[in-house]
Amino acid sequence: MSRQSFSLGELAEHTGSRLQGNADTLIHTVATLEQAQPGALSFLANPRYRQALATTQASAVVVPDQIQLDNPPFSRLHNRNPYLAFAQIARLLNPLPVAEPGIDPSAVVHAQAQIAADAQIGPGVHIGADARIGRGCVIDAGAVIGESVVLGDHCRIGCNVSVLAAARLGQRVHIAAGAVIGSDGFGFAQADTHWEAVPQLGSVVLGDDVAIGANTTIDRGSQGDTVIEAGCKLDNLVQIAHNVHIGAHTVIAASSGISGSTRIGAHCALGGQVGIAGHLTIVDGCTFTGMTMVTGHVREPGVYSSGIPAAPNREWRRNAVRFGQLESMARRLDALEKQLNNAGERPDE
Amino acid sequence: MSRQSFSLGELAEHTGSRLQGNADTLIHTVATLEQAQPGALSFLANPRYRQALATTQASAVVVPDQIQLDNPPFSRLHNRNPYLAFAQIARLLNPLPVAEPGIDPSAVVHAQAQIAADAQIGPGVHIGADARIGRGCVIDAGAVIGESVVLGDHCRIGCNVSVLAAARLGQRVHIAAGAVIGSDGFGFAQADTHWEAVPQLGSVVLGDDVAIGANTTIDRGSQGDTVIEAGCKLDNLVQIAHNVHIGAHTVIAASSGISGSTRIGAHCALGGQVGIAGHLTIVDGCTFTGMTMVTGHVREPGVYSSGIPAAPNREWRRNAVRFGQLESMARRLDALEKQLNNAGERPDE
Amino acid sequence: MSRQSFSLGELAEHTGSRLQGNADTLIHTVATLEQAQPGALSFLANPRYRQALATTQASAVVVPDQIQLDNPPFSRLHNRNPYLAFAQIARLLNPLPVAEPGIDPSAVVHAQAQIAADAQIGPGVHIGADARIGRGCVIDAGAVIGESVVLGDHCRIGCNVSVLAAARLGQRVHIAAGAVIGSDGFGFAQADTHWEAVPQLGSVVLGDDVAIGANTTIDRGSQGDTVIEAGCKLDNLVQIAHNVHIGAHTVIAASSGISGSTRIGAHCALGGQVGIAGHLTIVDGCTFTGMTMVTGHVREPGVYSSGIPAAPNREWRRNAVRFGQLESMARRLDALEKQLNNAGERPDE
Repeated sequence: MSRQSFSLGELAEHTGSRLQGNADTLIHTVATLEQAQPGALSFLANPRYRQALATTQASAVVVPDQIQLDNPPFSRLHNRNPYLAFAQIARLLNPLPVAEPGIDPSAVVHAQAQIAADAQIGPGVHIGADARIGRGCVIDAGAVIGESVVLGDHCRIGCNVSVLAAARLGQRVHIAAGAVIGSDGFGFAQADTHWEAVPQLGSVVLGDDVAIGANTTIDRGSQGDTVIEAGCKLDNLVQIAHNVHIGAHTVIAASSGISGSTRIGAHCALGGQVGIAGHLTIVDGCTFTGMTMVTGHVREPGVYSSGIPAAPNREWRRNAVRFGQLESMARRLDALEKQLNNAGERPDE
Repeated sequence: MSRQSFSLGELAEHTGSRLQGNADTLIHTVATLEQAQPGALSFLANPRYRQALATTQASAVVVPDQIQLDNPPFSRLHNRNPYLAFAQIARLLNPLPVAEPGIDPSAVVHAQAQIAADAQIGPGVHIGADARIGRGCVIDAGAVIGESVVLGDHCRIGCNVSVLAAARLGQRVHIAAGAVIGSDGFGFAQADTHWEAVPQLGSVVLGDDVAIGANTTIDRGSQGDTVIEAGCKLDNLVQIAHNVHIGAHTVIAASSGISGSTRIGAHCALGGQVGIAGHLTIVDGCTFTGMTMVTGHVREPGVYSSGIPAAPNREWRRNAVRFGQLESMARRLDALEKQLNNAGERPDE
Repeated sequence: MSRQSFSLGELAEHTGSRLQGNADTLIHTVATLEQAQPGALSFLANPRYRQALATTQASAVVVPDQIQLDNPPFSRLHNRNPYLAFAQIARLLNPLPVAEPGIDPSAVVHAQAQIAADAQIGPGVHIGADARIGRGCVIDAGAVIGESVVLGDHCRIGCNVSVLAAARLGQRVHIAAGAVIGSDGFGFAQADTHWEAVPQLGSVVLGDDVAIGANTTIDRGSQGDTVIEAGCKLDNLVQIAHNVHIGAHTVIAASSGISGSTRIGAHCALGGQVGIAGHLTIVDGCTFTGMTMVTGHVREPGVYSSGIPAAPNREWRRNAVRFGQLESMARRLDALEKQLNNAGERPDE
């Protein structure tokens, strides 16, 4: 997939790494230690996996600053963050395709939309009235950019994405295929016999460098906006309800859901299938492991978890039944302790 | 977002509210108590939050019937259901856009489809043979209405939605962007070495006023139909399997999943990420809190829950290990009780 | 929904069944035992439900080999796998529609794409450069087949599907509406203050006869490929992360998620909403019941479960609180046992 070659000297400079080896060696691709062939660069982030170094055919490896290696056959780029340096080299070798300016003849663009001259508008795209598409944006086939939506520069909107509700996207926002930004929030008022929709009037604001995964859904606010701050990364099939606010650089793995009006701090991390109830506040710096169920405010940074790991079905069935008896087990334990303390006191009587 | 203004007198009449204040005050928008400016109407549904009344700049507030207020600076609309009255006023100020009759030139409509003259068919829409689109329907860009699908009047089909399998929609059904109605059910027969697809021959029936969220999926029945009765509201990313039947006015929050052939009663409520196993019956009036796992029939109305709330990871790890020992803990408790009852009886010997 | 009729004699031969009854009876449709009318064939797979035989109006029923029936009014096809035989008959009566060769005028097909002459390319479809579409493929309205994607023969791609990243599909692969194949994996390297995307360079490989459900997402590999082997069936809204490898004939029910680099064996079965953490290995022949949380390797075939079944909310609240006390309860139990063993020994002192 690589487009060009770079010398190790260039790569060391690009990533601020200390080079040990041949500065003229040309690197044309990246690969795992196991799959690398000559001409490839790989990385070792965790010294635990260093035995893979013994057999790799990589021409160069990004390694931790402090690691001691005994004259290996590959060149080394020493870096305090090898994975980041590797990512930067991988990007250098595989740059994002530059927008090919122009509007596909099959696209339907409203006369009052403003499209930067160098934006790329793909086949079958629809762009509504008063939408604004920034410089260098790429809108892939079948995407819909609704009325009054604003895209900053260098955004990439995937195939069959829908961006609605006058959403405002910052610079370099990436939306993967099938995602829906700006759907109506789930707001209904209970009448005597039925539910009546509460008009959803707010919008969605996505900060610079936000990434949204495939088929993820982000609802517009009911009155204010749903806000995802700069640098957040959301995986596939994530649900963000109306009026949620997510602080900068928070990452959310696939199939998680955040209920309405919850505020999540900056630099948080959610594993897959995490669920967070509505109207909660989560402070900065919280990590939730996969499938965690969050039903209350979280006021201290830290790692939080819940859920029961898998067990053989027969064992699980017995323990799950006992879960339903926990309250009574606890009371029986109390009673035994009381009885036994009495018993223990008897000798003194 | 408001389109016009209404006097408080008009709004009181529209919602059946008792007005205290100036009937001529003009309201042109709705807002939360915190965000409201003069000219805005807000609401107080829960007297717990009444302290926000002290500082609101709203011109009028919908408040509960019985509430006592000490001569506040805003007008009041007293109503026994303030949130509903608020929703009705919000809708009055922000009416659903009326269909702009016509078929976009880029839409592909089968010659044998029947489209009401006042329906609005957006760019890139495809409508198949024998489909029928009722009066006042709005089909947004990129949606696909398959062969023989029937839409009642005033339906709204979002961008990039797929409605398939000759699904039949009632009046005023709203389908949000990216949803799939009428995909094949997950039915496979196990052969000796592989799985064979069981043809899925049924359809989907959505009653009047059903709302379906973004990227939600509703499978067609295997032989009979998958049925969602009138007034149901489904949030985003919900999965409804084949042959499920959901009673009227049931609401289902995001990322929940209902397995095949399960029947859910009317007026139920499911929180987010709830999972209901297949071939179950849930009676009317059941509520399931978020992430609840339903594996058996539910024969009594009520509120049901499961799952373990989040805890600091270190605590959780210890308790999760203990969960796997619950059966043995229970047996040890039994043994202690037996032993202790014996011990207790000894004095009588 | 049936297209033609077949005699019971033909159906017995087609399915390798032993016929008891009239070989000339014509069958024109399939139905459940409850809904069947004369002319319909039904099936009984589980003898537990045999009471439905007493009232069915089906003309014929596929029944287990060994079942004893007392001269019923319907003909019988005895088969050791009645459900499979039923599926085969249902398919015979309801064949998949044959591709109607041709490219809809509204489709946008790159000049360098190769489309088999008998493939059917629907309205608004986009096919990118160097894509190859095999014989008899059907691409439904609004689907996007990206650059260099390869589809084997007789694939069916649903409405608004996106197939990207040069994915390679085998023969007879079915992708339901809205699915995304080949989205970027969720890979970010942590810099000091933000996350940097790690270029996702791999692809997706789907084996022969794979079925993918509606709005399911399958990420491309980061360097190698994400691989789903032949005969796997995935339901709706499933998430498959980058570099996952799934063995042949494994089935995954709706809303499940598999994290990055995990390897699942062949002939496994996942219920709905199962979550499997990353970098794990699951051997062949494992079953995970719905909502199971898998956080470690699984080295033995078998049935695995986790999660807590629903209970009335009041009970659940008490037990969930006690879950947080499990570690201390276990320690208290230890202490009691120690004390009691001492106490028990006292009489001997």
